[in-house]
Amino acid sequence: MVSVAFKKNLKEKYGIAFHNEKLLDAAFTHSSYANEHPGTTDYEKLEFLGDAVLELAVSDYLYRHFPKLNEGELTRLRSNIVRTEGFSEFAKECGFQKEVNLGKGEEKAGARQRKTLLEDVFEAFNGALFLDQGMPAVQHFLHLTVYPLIAEGDFNASRDYKTELQEKLQVNGAIDIEYNVISQDESVPTFTVQLSVAGKKLTTGTGRNKKAAEQEAAAKALKKK
Amino acid sequence: MVSVAFKKNLKEKYGIAFHNEKLLDAAFTHSSYANEHPGTTDYEKLEFLGDAVLELAVSDYLYRHFPKLNEGELTRLRSNIVRTEGFSEFAKECGFQKEVNLGKGEEKAGARQRKTLLEDVFEAFNGALFLDQGMPAVQHFLHLTVYPLIAEGDFNASRDYKTELQEKLQVNGAIDIEYNVISQDESVPTFTVQLSVAGKKLTTGTGRNKKAAEQEAAAKALKKK
Repeated sequence: MVSVAFKKNLKEKYGIAFHNEKLLDAAFTHSSYANEHPGTTDYEKLEFLGDAVLELAVSDYLYRHFPKLNEGELTRLRSNIVRTEGFSEFAKECGFQKEVNLGKGEEKAGARQRKTLLEDVFEAFNGALFLDQGMPAVQHFLHLTVYPLIAEGDFNASRDYKTELQEKLQVNGAIDIEYNVISQDESVPTFTVQLSVAGKKLTTGTGRNKKAAEQEAAAKALKKK
Repeated sequence: MVSVAFKKNLKEKYGIAFHNEKLLDAAFTHSSYANEHPGTTDYEKLEFLGDAVLELAVSDYLYRHFPKLNEGELTRLRSNIVRTEGFSEFAKECGFQKEVNLGKGEEKAGARQRKTLLEDVFEAFNGALFLDQGMPAVQHFLHLTVYPLIAEGDFNASRDYKTELQEKLQVNGAIDIEYNVISQDESVPTFTVQLSVAGKKLTTGTGRNKKAAEQEAAAKALKKK
Protein backbone atom coordinates (compact mmCIF):
# COMPACT_ATOMS: atom_id res chain seq x y z
CA MET A 1 0.00 0.00 0.00
CA VAL A 2 2.81 2.37 0.87
CA SER A 3 4.48 3.39 -2.41
CA VAL A 4 7.74 1.90 -3.63
CA ALA A 5 9.19 5.41 -3.95
CA PHE A 6 8.41 6.08 -0.29
CA LYS A 7 10.05 2.84 0.84
CA LYS A 8 13.11 3.72 -1.23
CA ASN A 9 13.24 7.14 0.40
CA LEU A 10 12.91 5.63 3.89
CA LYS A 11 15.84 3.38 3.15
CA GLU A 12 18.08 5.98 1.56
CA LYS A 13 17.34 8.95 3.77
CA TYR A 14 16.81 7.26 7.14
CA GLY A 15 18.30 3.79 6.71
CA ILE A 16 14.95 2.18 7.52
CA ALA A 17 13.70 -1.02 5.87
CA PHE A 18 10.78 -2.74 7.60
CA HIS A 19 10.96 -6.49 8.17
CA ASN A 20 7.19 -6.65 8.56
CA GLU A 21 5.72 -4.34 5.94
CA LYS A 22 2.21 -4.93 7.26
CA LEU A 23 3.12 -2.76 10.22
CA LEU A 24 4.31 -0.02 7.89
CA ASP A 25 1.11 -0.19 5.84
CA ALA A 26 -1.07 -0.10 8.96
CA ALA A 27 0.75 3.00 10.24
CA PHE A 28 -0.47 4.89 7.18
CA THR A 29 -4.06 3.64 7.19
CA HIS A 30 -6.75 5.89 8.64
CA SER A 31 -9.82 4.24 10.15
CA SER A 32 -12.01 5.78 7.42
CA TYR A 33 -10.05 3.79 4.81
CA ALA A 34 -10.11 0.61 6.88
CA ASN A 35 -13.90 0.95 7.19
CA GLU A 36 -14.21 1.06 3.42
CA HIS A 37 -11.75 -1.82 2.91
CA PRO A 38 -12.62 -4.74 5.20
CA GLY A 39 -9.57 -6.75 6.20
CA THR A 40 -7.21 -3.78 6.40
CA THR A 41 -5.84 -2.60 9.74
CA ASP A 42 -5.86 1.06 10.73
CA TYR A 43 -3.21 2.90 12.70
CA GLU A 44 -5.10 3.53 15.92
CA LYS A 45 -3.42 0.90 18.05
CA LEU A 46 -0.01 1.75 16.62
CA GLU A 47 -0.71 5.35 17.57
CA PHE A 48 -1.49 4.21 21.15
CA LEU A 49 1.89 2.50 21.28
CA GLY A 50 3.76 5.20 19.36
CA ASP A 51 2.62 7.85 21.83
CA ALA A 52 4.47 5.99 24.60
CA VAL A 53 7.44 5.25 22.33
CA LEU A 54 7.93 8.95 21.58
CA GLU A 55 7.45 9.88 25.23
CA LEU A 56 10.24 7.54 26.30
CA ALA A 57 12.56 8.37 23.39
CA VAL A 58 12.24 12.09 24.11
CA SER A 59 12.61 11.56 27.88
CA ASP A 60 15.77 9.53 27.36
CA TYR A 61 17.20 12.17 25.01
CA LEU A 62 16.44 14.99 27.48
CA TYR A 63 17.84 13.02 30.43
CA ARG A 64 21.13 12.48 28.61
CA HIS A 65 21.52 15.86 26.90
CA PHE A 66 20.26 18.35 29.47
CA PRO A 67 22.09 17.32 32.65
CA LYS A 68 21.66 20.77 34.18
CA LEU A 69 17.85 20.82 34.09
CA ASN A 70 15.97 19.66 37.16
CA GLU A 71 13.05 17.26 37.11
CA GLY A 72 10.41 19.98 36.82
CA GLU A 73 12.18 21.65 33.89
CA LEU A 74 12.66 18.32 32.14
CA THR A 75 8.96 17.51 32.59
CA ARG A 76 7.86 20.86 31.12
CA LEU A 77 10.22 20.53 28.18
CA ARG A 78 9.06 16.96 27.50
CA SER A 79 5.47 18.10 27.62
CA ASN A 80 6.22 20.90 25.12
CA ILE A 81 7.78 18.41 22.73
CA VAL A 82 5.36 15.49 22.89
CA ARG A 83 2.21 17.63 23.02
CA THR A 84 3.41 19.97 20.35
CA GLU A 85 1.94 20.28 16.95
CA GLY A 86 5.49 20.03 15.70
CA PHE A 87 5.24 16.34 14.91
CA SER A 88 3.04 17.20 11.93
CA GLU A 89 5.93 19.18 10.43
CA PHE A 90 8.25 16.21 10.78
CA ALA A 91 5.60 14.01 9.17
CA LYS A 92 5.50 16.39 6.20
CA GLU A 93 9.29 16.56 5.91
CA CYS A 94 9.44 12.77 5.89
CA GLY A 95 6.92 12.66 3.05
CA PHE A 96 4.23 10.95 5.13
CA GLN A 97 1.39 13.14 3.88
CA LYS A 98 1.14 11.60 0.43
CA GLU A 99 1.17 8.05 1.77
CA VAL A 100 -1.83 8.19 4.12
CA ASN A 101 -4.73 5.96 3.10
CA LEU A 102 -7.97 7.87 3.64
CA GLY A 103 -11.62 7.00 3.11
CA LYS A 104 -13.39 8.92 0.37
CA GLY A 105 -15.36 11.17 2.71
CA GLU A 106 -12.34 12.14 4.79
CA GLU A 107 -10.29 12.80 1.65
CA LYS A 108 -12.98 15.14 0.39
CA ALA A 109 -13.16 16.85 3.78
CA GLY A 110 -9.48 17.73 3.51
CA ALA A 111 -8.23 15.36 6.24
CA ARG A 112 -4.89 15.00 4.44
CA GLN A 113 -4.06 18.62 5.31
CA ARG A 114 -4.98 18.24 8.98
CA LYS A 115 -2.13 18.65 11.42
CA THR A 116 -3.76 16.35 13.95
CA LEU A 117 -3.91 13.55 11.37
CA LEU A 118 -0.24 13.99 10.49
CA GLU A 119 0.71 13.95 14.18
CA ASP A 120 -1.24 10.73 14.66
CA VAL A 121 0.52 9.15 11.67
CA PHE A 122 3.90 10.26 13.01
CA GLU A 123 3.13 8.54 16.32
CA ALA A 124 1.84 5.42 14.57
CA PHE A 125 4.96 5.24 12.37
CA ASN A 126 7.20 5.34 15.44
CA GLY A 127 5.04 2.69 17.12
CA ALA A 128 5.41 0.46 14.06
CA LEU A 129 9.17 1.05 13.92
CA PHE A 130 9.47 0.14 17.61
CA LEU A 131 7.58 -3.13 17.10
CA ASP A 132 9.61 -3.97 14.00
CA GLN A 133 13.10 -3.04 15.21
CA GLY A 134 13.05 -1.85 18.82
CA MET A 135 13.99 1.35 20.59
CA PRO A 136 17.45 1.90 19.05
CA ALA A 137 15.91 2.14 15.55
CA VAL A 138 13.40 4.73 16.79
CA GLN A 139 16.18 6.72 18.42
CA HIS A 140 18.21 6.63 15.20
CA PHE A 141 15.22 7.94 13.23
CA LEU A 142 14.61 10.72 15.77
CA HIS A 143 18.29 11.70 15.63
CA LEU A 144 17.70 12.51 11.97
CA THR A 145 14.41 14.35 12.52
CA VAL A 146 13.24 15.54 15.96
CA TYR A 147 16.35 15.66 18.17
CA PRO A 148 18.24 18.36 16.20
CA LEU A 149 15.38 20.79 16.79
CA ILE A 150 15.33 19.97 20.51
CA ALA A 151 19.06 20.71 20.63
CA GLU A 152 18.41 24.05 18.91
CA GLY A 153 15.96 25.01 21.64
CA ASP A 154 12.85 25.05 19.44
CA PHE A 155 10.82 23.54 22.25
CA ASN A 156 12.26 25.46 25.17
CA ALA A 157 9.78 25.56 28.01
CA SER A 158 10.31 29.27 28.39
CA ARG A 159 9.63 30.15 24.77
CA ASP A 160 6.45 32.15 24.54
CA TYR A 161 6.18 33.63 21.06
CA LYS A 162 3.23 35.90 21.85
CA THR A 163 5.16 37.59 24.65
CA GLU A 164 8.33 37.75 22.57
CA LEU A 165 6.47 39.40 19.69
CA GLN A 166 4.75 41.88 21.98
CA GLU A 167 8.03 42.87 23.59
CA LYS A 168 9.66 43.31 20.20
CA LEU A 169 6.83 45.35 18.67
CA GLN A 170 6.18 47.54 21.69
CA VAL A 171 9.77 48.57 22.20
CA ASN A 172 8.91 52.01 20.76
CA GLY A 173 5.58 52.37 22.54
CA ALA A 174 2.16 50.78 22.46
CA ILE A 175 1.02 49.15 19.24
CA ASP A 176 -2.24 47.37 18.57
CA ILE A 177 -1.80 43.59 18.32
CA GLU A 178 -4.89 41.49 17.64
CA TYR A 179 -5.54 37.77 17.34
CA ASN A 180 -8.88 36.83 15.81
CA VAL A 181 -10.21 33.33 15.30
CA ILE A 182 -11.07 33.15 11.60
CA SER A 183 -12.11 29.52 11.48
CA GLN A 184 -12.63 26.70 13.87
CA ASP A 185 -13.73 23.12 13.70
CA GLU A 186 -14.48 21.82 17.19
CA SER A 187 -14.98 18.29 15.94
CA VAL A 188 -11.38 17.79 14.83
CA PRO A 189 -10.50 20.25 16.58
CA THR A 190 -8.62 22.83 14.53
CA PHE A 191 -8.48 26.58 15.08
CA THR A 192 -7.10 29.21 12.74
CA VAL A 193 -6.32 32.70 13.97
CA GLN A 194 -5.40 35.85 12.10
CA LEU A 195 -2.72 38.00 13.67
CA SER A 196 -2.98 41.71 12.86
CA VAL A 197 -0.54 44.38 13.94
CA ALA A 198 -1.65 48.00 13.84
CA GLY A 199 -4.64 46.91 11.80
CA LYS A 200 -2.52 45.16 9.15
CA LYS A 201 -2.91 41.43 8.63
CA LEU A 202 0.46 39.86 9.29
CA THR A 203 0.28 36.07 9.68
CA THR A 204 -2.14 33.25 10.43
CA GLY A 205 -1.64 30.28 12.71
CA THR A 206 -3.49 27.01 13.15
CA GLY A 207 -3.56 24.63 16.08
CA ARG A 208 -5.52 22.20 18.20
CA ASN A 209 -6.73 25.08 20.36
CA LYS A 210 -6.83 28.86 20.21
CA LYS A 211 -3.71 29.26 22.32
CA ALA A 212 -1.62 26.99 20.08
CA ALA A 213 -2.90 28.78 16.98
CA GLU A 214 -1.97 32.16 18.45
CA GLN A 215 1.49 30.93 19.37
CA GLU A 216 2.03 29.72 15.82
CA ALA A 217 0.89 33.03 14.34
CA ALA A 218 3.25 34.89 16.68
CA ALA A 219 6.15 32.54 15.92
CA LYS A 220 5.68 33.10 12.18
CA ALA A 221 5.59 36.86 12.71
CA LEU A 222 8.84 36.70 14.67
CA LYS A 223 10.52 34.83 11.81
CA LYS A 224 9.31 37.45 9.31
CA LYS A 225 10.85 40.38 11.12
CA MET B 1 24.45 2.66 49.96
CA VAL B 2 21.98 -0.02 48.95
CA SER B 3 22.57 -3.02 51.20
CA VAL B 4 24.53 -6.09 50.14
CA ALA B 5 21.56 -8.27 51.11
CA PHE B 6 19.30 -6.27 48.79
CA LYS B 7 21.73 -6.59 45.88
CA LYS B 8 21.92 -10.33 46.51
CA ASN B 9 18.14 -10.54 46.49
CA LEU B 10 17.89 -8.54 43.26
CA LYS B 11 20.32 -10.95 41.63
CA GLU B 12 18.75 -14.16 42.92
CA LYS B 13 15.08 -13.26 42.65
CA TYR B 14 15.07 -11.09 39.52
CA GLY B 15 18.40 -11.84 37.83
CA ILE B 16 19.39 -8.17 38.06
CA ALA B 17 22.95 -7.00 38.69
CA PHE B 18 23.66 -3.34 37.95
CA HIS B 19 26.74 -2.47 35.93
CA ASN B 20 26.65 1.09 37.25
CA GLU B 21 25.75 0.85 40.93
CA LYS B 22 25.62 4.64 41.23
CA LEU B 23 22.36 4.52 39.30
CA LEU B 24 20.97 1.94 41.72
CA ASP B 25 21.99 4.03 44.73
CA ALA B 26 20.46 7.18 43.24
CA ALA B 27 17.16 5.36 42.62
CA PHE B 28 16.82 4.84 46.37
CA THR B 29 17.87 8.32 47.48
CA HIS B 30 15.16 10.81 48.44
CA SER B 31 15.90 14.51 47.96
CA SER B 32 15.72 15.04 51.75
CA TYR B 33 18.68 12.69 52.16
CA ALA B 34 20.61 14.26 49.29
CA ASN B 35 20.09 17.70 50.88
CA GLU B 36 21.69 16.45 54.09
CA HIS B 37 24.54 14.69 52.26
CA PRO B 38 26.10 17.01 49.67
CA GLY B 39 27.48 15.13 46.69
CA THR B 40 24.79 12.45 46.62
CA THR B 41 22.27 12.28 43.80
CA ASP B 42 18.54 11.90 44.46
CA TYR B 43 16.06 9.90 42.41
CA GLU B 44 14.02 12.73 40.93
CA LYS B 45 15.44 12.65 37.42
CA LEU B 46 15.39 8.86 37.37
CA GLU B 47 11.72 9.06 38.33
CA PHE B 48 11.13 11.44 35.37
CA LEU B 49 12.67 8.84 33.07
CA GLY B 50 11.14 5.82 34.83
CA ASP B 51 7.65 7.24 34.41
CA ALA B 52 8.10 7.09 30.61
CA VAL B 53 9.84 3.70 30.80
CA LEU B 54 6.88 2.17 32.65
CA GLU B 55 4.40 3.83 30.30
CA LEU B 56 6.06 2.26 27.26
CA ALA B 57 6.67 -1.13 28.89
CA VAL B 58 3.02 -1.38 29.91
CA SER B 59 1.79 -0.10 26.52
CA ASP B 60 3.90 -2.68 24.71
CA TYR B 61 2.62 -5.47 26.98
CA LEU B 62 -1.01 -4.42 26.48
CA TYR B 63 -0.57 -4.08 22.70
CA ARG B 64 0.79 -7.61 22.47
CA HIS B 65 -1.44 -9.38 25.00
CA PHE B 66 -4.85 -7.78 24.50
CA PRO B 67 -5.33 -7.93 20.72
CA LYS B 68 -9.11 -7.69 21.05
CA LEU B 69 -9.17 -4.35 22.87
CA ASN B 70 -9.54 -1.21 20.80
CA GLU B 71 -7.43 1.91 21.20
CA GLY B 72 -9.78 3.55 23.69
CA GLU B 73 -9.92 0.46 25.89
CA LEU B 74 -6.14 0.07 25.77
CA THR B 75 -5.69 3.72 26.76
CA ARG B 76 -8.04 3.41 29.75
CA LEU B 77 -6.39 0.20 30.90
CA ARG B 78 -2.92 1.74 30.57
CA SER B 79 -4.03 4.74 32.54
CA ASN B 80 -5.40 2.48 35.31
CA ILE B 81 -2.08 0.68 35.54
CA VAL B 82 0.41 3.53 35.33
CA ARG B 83 -1.59 5.93 37.50
CA THR B 84 -2.47 3.30 40.03
CA GLU B 85 -1.24 3.19 43.55
CA GLY B 86 -0.40 -0.42 42.83
CA PHE B 87 3.25 0.31 42.12
CA SER B 88 3.78 0.90 45.84
CA GLU B 89 2.74 -2.69 46.53
CA PHE B 90 5.27 -3.99 44.02
CA ALA B 91 7.91 -1.78 45.64
CA LYS B 92 7.14 -3.38 49.00
CA GLU B 93 7.19 -6.90 47.60
CA CYS B 94 10.58 -6.22 46.04
CA GLY B 95 11.91 -5.07 49.43
CA PHE B 96 12.43 -1.47 48.28
CA GLN B 97 10.99 0.07 51.43
CA LYS B 98 13.91 -0.73 53.70
CA GLU B 99 16.48 0.56 51.21
CA VAL B 100 15.24 4.12 50.74
CA ASN B 101 17.64 6.81 51.98
CA LEU B 102 15.63 9.49 53.77
CA GLY B 103 16.55 12.73 55.49
CA LYS B 104 16.06 12.81 59.23
CA GLY B 105 12.96 15.01 59.15
CA GLU B 106 11.20 12.90 56.51
CA GLU B 107 12.08 9.70 58.34
CA LYS B 108 10.51 11.08 61.49
CA ALA B 109 7.44 12.22 59.55
CA GLY B 110 6.87 8.62 58.45
CA ALA B 111 7.75 9.11 54.76
CA ARG B 112 8.97 5.51 54.56
CA GLN B 113 5.37 4.31 54.91
CA ARG B 114 4.03 6.67 52.22
CA LYS B 115 2.62 5.00 49.16
CA THR B 116 3.49 7.96 46.98
CA LEU B 117 7.16 7.69 47.98
CA LEU B 118 7.24 3.97 47.19
CA GLU B 119 5.61 4.59 43.81
CA ASP B 120 8.23 7.21 43.03
CA VAL B 121 11.02 4.82 44.00
CA PHE B 122 9.49 2.09 41.84
CA GLU B 123 9.52 4.47 38.86
CA ALA B 124 13.08 5.60 39.61
CA PHE B 125 14.28 1.99 39.89
CA ASN B 126 12.85 1.19 36.46
CA GLY B 127 14.43 4.35 35.06
CA ALA B 128 17.80 3.29 36.45
CA LEU B 129 17.40 -0.24 35.11
CA PHE B 130 16.56 1.16 31.65
CA LEU B 131 19.68 3.33 31.63
CA ASP B 132 21.86 0.50 32.86
CA GLN B 133 20.56 -2.33 30.69
CA GLY B 134 17.87 -1.13 28.28
CA MET B 135 14.23 -1.97 27.70
CA PRO B 136 14.50 -5.79 27.60
CA ALA B 137 15.82 -5.84 31.19
CA VAL B 138 12.91 -3.69 32.34
CA GLN B 139 10.46 -5.96 30.56
CA HIS B 140 12.02 -9.02 32.20
CA PHE B 141 11.68 -7.42 35.64
CA LEU B 142 8.04 -6.49 34.98
CA HIS B 143 7.31 -10.03 33.82
CA LEU B 144 8.22 -11.13 37.34
CA THR B 145 6.27 -8.38 39.10
CA VAL B 146 3.64 -6.25 37.35
CA TYR B 147 2.58 -8.17 34.23
CA PRO B 148 1.10 -11.21 36.01
CA LEU B 149 -1.39 -8.95 37.80
CA ILE B 150 -2.34 -7.26 34.53
CA ALA B 151 -2.99 -10.69 33.04
CA GLU B 152 -5.22 -11.53 36.01
CA GLY B 153 -7.35 -8.47 35.33
CA ASP B 154 -6.45 -6.59 38.51
CA PHE B 155 -6.39 -3.32 36.60
CA ASN B 156 -9.44 -3.83 34.41
CA ALA B 157 -10.85 -0.52 33.36
CA SER B 158 -14.33 -1.63 34.37
CA ARG B 159 -13.43 -2.70 37.89
CA ASP B 160 -15.17 -0.43 40.37
CA TYR B 161 -14.86 -1.91 43.84
CA LYS B 162 -17.27 0.51 45.51
CA THR B 163 -20.06 -0.46 43.13
CA GLU B 164 -19.18 -4.16 43.39
CA LEU B 165 -19.31 -4.00 47.17
CA GLN B 166 -22.59 -2.12 47.18
CA GLU B 167 -24.19 -4.63 44.82
CA LYS B 168 -22.97 -7.52 46.95
CA LEU B 169 -24.09 -6.06 50.27
CA GLN B 170 -27.43 -4.78 49.10
CA VAL B 171 -28.55 -7.98 47.46
CA ASN B 172 -30.94 -8.56 50.41
CA GLY B 173 -32.13 -4.96 50.68
CA ALA B 174 -30.71 -1.61 51.65
CA ILE B 175 -27.78 -1.50 54.04
CA ASP B 176 -25.95 1.51 55.34
CA ILE B 177 -22.47 1.87 53.75
CA GLU B 178 -20.36 4.81 54.84
CA TYR B 179 -16.95 6.11 53.83
CA ASN B 180 -15.42 8.69 56.17
CA VAL B 181 -12.12 10.45 55.74
CA ILE B 182 -10.26 9.80 58.99
CA SER B 183 -7.01 11.50 58.07
CA GLN B 184 -5.65 13.55 55.24
CA ASP B 185 -2.44 15.29 54.42
CA GLU B 186 -2.95 17.63 51.47
CA SER B 187 0.75 18.40 51.24
CA VAL B 188 1.76 14.86 50.26
CA PRO B 189 -1.23 14.22 49.49
CA THR B 190 -2.49 11.13 51.30
CA PHE B 191 -6.05 10.37 52.34
CA THR B 192 -7.26 7.62 54.65
CA VAL B 193 -10.90 6.62 54.78
CA GLN B 194 -12.79 4.35 57.14
CA LEU B 195 -15.39 2.09 55.56
CA SER B 196 -18.28 1.19 57.84
CA VAL B 197 -21.11 -1.16 56.97
CA ALA B 198 -24.29 -1.02 59.06
CA GLY B 199 -22.41 1.07 61.60
CA LYS B 200 -19.58 -1.46 61.99
CA LYS B 201 -16.04 -0.49 61.04
CA LEU B 202 -14.91 -2.88 58.33
CA THR B 203 -11.77 -1.71 56.55
CA THR B 204 -9.66 1.36 55.87
CA GLY B 205 -8.10 2.48 52.63
CA THR B 206 -5.45 5.05 51.78
CA GLY B 207 -4.72 6.82 48.53
CA ARG B 208 -3.60 9.95 46.75
CA ASN B 209 -7.18 11.24 46.78
CA LYS B 210 -10.45 10.41 48.50
CA LYS B 211 -11.75 8.37 45.58
CA ALA B 212 -8.67 6.14 45.46
CA ALA B 213 -8.80 5.66 49.23
CA GLU B 214 -12.47 4.64 49.04
CA GLN B 215 -11.75 2.20 46.22
CA GLU B 216 -9.02 0.57 48.26
CA ALA B 217 -11.25 0.27 51.33
CA ALA B 218 -13.98 -1.33 49.18
CA ALA B 219 -11.49 -3.69 47.49
CA LYS B 220 -10.22 -4.87 50.88
CA ALA B 221 -13.79 -5.42 52.07
CA LEU B 222 -14.53 -7.51 48.96
CA LYS B 223 -11.51 -9.71 49.68
CA LYS B 224 -12.68 -10.20 53.28
CA LYS B 225 -16.10 -11.53 52.36
